[in-house]
Amino acid sequence: MDLINSIPTIEPNGEPSVLQIIQIIMLNFELVNPVKILFGKGEIAKIKKHIPNQAKVLLLYGKGSIKKNGIYDQVVSALSDHAIVEFGGIPANPEYSILMKALSVIKNEEINFILAVGGGSVIDGAKFLSSAALFEGEEPWDILTKGIRTEKGMPFGTVLTLPATGSEMNSGSVISRKETGQKLGMGGPGLFPKFSVLDPTVVASIPNRQLANGITDAFTHVMEQYMTYPIGADLQDRFAESIMSSLIDTAPKLIDNPSDYTIASNFMWCCTMALNGLIQKGVPNDWAIHAMGHELTALHGIDHARTLAIIAPRHYAYFLENKKEKLAQYGERVWNITEGNIEERAKQAIEKTESFFHSLDIPTRISAYTNDFKNTAEKVSTALESRGWVALGEHKAVTPDAVKEIVEASY
Amino acid sequence: MDLINSIPTIEPNGEPSVLQIIQIIMLNFELVNPVKILFGKGEIAKIKKHIPNQAKVLLLYGKGSIKKNGIYDQVVSALSDHAIVEFGGIPANPEYSILMKALSVIKNEEINFILAVGGGSVIDGAKFLSSAALFEGEEPWDILTKGIRTEKGMPFGTVLTLPATGSEMNSGSVISRKETGQKLGMGGPGLFPKFSVLDPTVVASIPNRQLANGITDAFTHVMEQYMTYPIGADLQDRFAESIMSSLIDTAPKLIDNPSDYTIASNFMWCCTMALNGLIQKGVPNDWAIHAMGHELTALHGIDHARTLAIIAPRHYAYFLENKKEKLAQYGERVWNITEGNIEERAKQAIEKTESFFHSLDIPTRISAYTNDFKNTAEKVSTALESRGWVALGEHKAVTPDAVKEIVEASY
Repeated sequence: MDLINSIPTIEPNGEPSVLQIIQIIMLNFELVNPVKILFGKGEIAKIKKHIPNQAKVLLLYGKGSIKKNGIYDQVVSALSDHAIVEFGGIPANPEYSILMKALSVIKNEEINFILAVGGGSVIDGAKFLSSAALFEGEEPWDILTKGIRTEKGMPFGTVLTLPATGSEMNSGSVISRKETGQKLGMGGPGLFPKFSVLDPTVVASIPNRQLANGITDAFTHVMEQYMTYPIGADLQDRFAESIMSSLIDTAPKLIDNPSDYTIASNFMWCCTMALNGLIQKGVPNDWAIHAMGHELTALHGIDHARTLAIIAPRHYAYFLENKKEKLAQYGERVWNITEGNIEERAKQAIEKTESFFHSLDIPTRISAYTNDFKNTAEKVSTALESRGWVALGEHKAVTPDAVKEIVEASY
Repeated sequence: MDLINSIPTIEPNGEPSVLQIIQIIMLNFELVNPVKILFGKGEIAKIKKHIPNQAKVLLLYGKGSIKKNGIYDQVVSALSDHAIVEFGGIPANPEYSILMKALSVIKNEEINFILAVGGGSVIDGAKFLSSAALFEGEEPWDILTKGIRTEKGMPFGTVLTLPATGSEMNSGSVISRKETGQKLGMGGPGLFPKFSVLDPTVVASIPNRQLANGITDAFTHVMEQYMTYPIGADLQDRFAESIMSSLIDTAPKLIDNPSDYTIASNFMWCCTMALNGLIQKGVPNDWAIHAMGHELTALHGIDHARTLAIIAPRHYAYFLENKKEKLAQYGERVWNITEGNIEERAKQAIEKTESFFHSLDIPTRISAYTNDFKNTAEKVSTALESRGWVALGEHKAVTPDAVKEIVEASY
């Protein structure tokens, strides 16, 4: 139950009914996304207009890079007429115990607006705080373990400093807790940011490793919503293919020259559109790669995006029969693969995908990250099973046994 | 001033600054779209959950086709617990004098929620009523002539019965007034529907002529936001190309079999995505085709979509030099035109576009619609000039003289 909540759907992501699968038709859906995007150089200055004058603002950030790259100064300058309390130090996988300290600050200081300045982790942390600040139960961790939907949260906005997760334009969040070894999801209509500033000039100061992770994360987000089975949702398919093609074109240029505004703009917008709810509507979704990937992060501390690059090629190879039509379509439209039958084209598409990750200097084997992987497959499978999962994926075909084989093939 | 408001932008559509044009970079933008989409067969039944229980609802519709195709029954059945007052008879170009009668009903009956059941005209009419119902001035027509932005309107929802205009997911509206011969636009953040139901089964009962118009309208909406000059907004370009490619694929199948749910679904979603604000953000927009087209409708009563099909090929031929890069890119990516230099490919792309309209049985010459066109070019040019226009289009290069030549070339 935990992990399905970690999929940042905007509304419960309706599984296809049996009837719909048989008919192969677009699935019914609800779509709403009220986030106001402020995109472009200099837009940070506008946040003062979007935060109530009388608000007392918690300025939430990470490890302090915003103090080096000038973003902190821009934010503080924009909010010179607002009352601000700072809370820094949110780590890469937003940690519950640290967020609980921020929650104390919110209560003690009577904060009524949260401004997240950072990447997906800081924004996800702000979403937890938004929910926890108005939570009436005893133990805010229940929001995650009991899958409590947040209908109303404390209002918050974001200034994105690291394109990757799409959290700036969706209502999902993933929170980690070291004490219990858990990494759980939460969400709900109350967790959309009021606004998100996307200023592409922030990209110039991001290290290459994080840029490569961002591209890989966004790319895999698209694949999770696309690489299932064809149901004739032509426009959703083309939009997904557009984001993947654009990321592939942009990636080498971005690594080469992250200061180029045009390249940075496109990278940033692709990452947001990859997981703002649009392309997932009306189509089956997978998300099993994320489920397995989260466990690899929990077990070995591998960067989230890199766990996806490890699992994706093996997952698609294992489920080739189920996914070959979409893999072949992706191969043709995104990679120009036109030779061979459907199965052969599907296999070439998987190879192209793995090569793409390699081109970003991202190893796609667990053994590249740790020597201690002998029991990883067993552990991932057991961990997922212990969370009540019987099976994952668009066909519920990712059983514990399948998980074990996929992870083992990833060594 | 009127016509620029008739472009259904969500926020004022920032013209590129000189600096931005020189640098050829993605333009700054704001994007927000709070409309809740309920997509799929059977979704009409859900509207009761989205209209307050105590609301007194004005049920607004057109010429009564909804009473023949079963949609009226579904709506009334869904609202069996709501107080409803009906107002039918909204014509194809929503007419001010008729809307003023509906406004009297709203006031007399103390209506507080409007439900538009129809196509773009009924929805545009509902938007006018939403604004006029809360308007504090003497004369609601001022909203249109004085370009008054609607910050807050009476809440309204829509049940779409004719995919084409995209009005169901944007905040713009175009209203006609026979008495003065005007066709003017209005908009503002208060004019987003609270919800819009898109049930593809409604498509089955739409006559071929309206289906062809819908495809042409949506297709031209995309072109107006795309066919300008390249600024490196790669994802927006690809999204626009996706909608155009999908409409081209879908068109013949739709005309052949509008009862096919998959085809109808894709048609419907393409029309909505063509003008919900997404693809216009960050890029220059044209909209001169619409400006000229509106005048042809006003002068000769030609269907809106058909005026666009008449003007577009001539507009692009006239501005070939300004637009050739995007025309060639469109030609290559959407029509697979790879032979010839940029100018030659651009010309082929224009020919393909006109042939596409012809394939839908849409004539692209004014003479196919009226014999009385001798002074049309002069009249269109004068009419646009009389509205205070000096020049239209992304470069402000569509001067009155250019308008005259383009319309004359369309005879």
